[in-house]
Amino acid sequence: MAPHRNQNLLADLVVGIDHVGVCVADMDESAALWSSLLGLAVAHRECVDVQRTEAAFLDPPDGGATIELVSPMAGNTGLNKFLQTRGDGLHHLAFAVSDIGEALGRLAAANVRLLDAVPRPGARGHKVAFLHPAATHGTLVELVERSSQHGEEK
Amino acid sequence: MAPHRNQNLLADLVVGIDHVGVCVADMDESAALWSSLLGLAVAHRECVDVQRTEAAFLDPPDGGATIELVSPMAGNTGLNKFLQTRGDGLHHLAFAVSDIGEALGRLAAANVRLLDAVPRPGARGHKVAFLHPAATHGTLVELVERSSQHGEEK
Repeated sequence: MAPHRNQNLLADLVVGIDHVGVCVADMDESAALWSSLLGLAVAHRECVDVQRTEAAFLDPPDGGATIELVSPMAGNTGLNKFLQTRGDGLHHLAFAVSDIGEALGRLAAANVRLLDAVPRPGARGHKVAFLHPAATHGTLVELVERSSQHGEEK
Repeated sequence: MAPHRNQNLLADLVVGIDHVGVCVADMDESAALWSSLLGLAVAHRECVDVQRTEAAFLDPPDGGATIELVSPMAGNTGLNKFLQTRGDGLHHLAFAVSDIGEALGRLAAANVRLLDAVPRPGARGHKVAFLHPAATHGTLVELVERSSQHGEEK
């Protein structure tokens, strides 16, 4: 049994689903496709140099969880490997947390495998970190501390 | 160019993300894992006989989009094939729509490929339908008309 069982590690930190990441090979084509089908326009688009990704966010009317279309920039081996192996498709599931540093500390202390031991800059100015997919049986989970929350704490 | 381009087909029908589907081989094990890691308890669990699936919903505190853990019952070839090919992982992305019949009618009229031409019963008493993954470059999209909305219309 994994060492983190039955501890509800992040129970007081998880707010909800922040976004669902969909990996796409052609950002323009996919943004047009999702917009035309679902009527969700791109609310925000940026290149996140430190992650070597281009991201476009489609924000549904209810103001809740969003869709992130994510495409690899040159030098991003992880997303390129994903596209080569599986093609376009669902890539990761991101949860909003109130304190990402505290969340990572608890996960590390419980020996949960992490891809990021410390938060890194993500799209929209948020702080993000990824768990190792082995920690959740193959689903790549991202944690997001939203920049607006961070700003309110200052 | 696909026939449905630039039509914002479902612009006035899509409410937001209803849930993210995660296919799992062992429901008890996975429900315990997600609960222990994220502190999200199973809010609802049921077997949907008509779909040959067992489903468990983890509802985050913000009351927004949820996670559906979904596991195949005997005779479900689609989910069993998914597990054999990819193992546990992200399976589908479900959008809440205000009128699923109207949504399917528009999609069919625009020659968008559908797995379900008419809605079928889903978990929690909702009406659901799946688009063919080829319609969205490999992401399996589900439409959900929530039973509470349906009830309010009566």
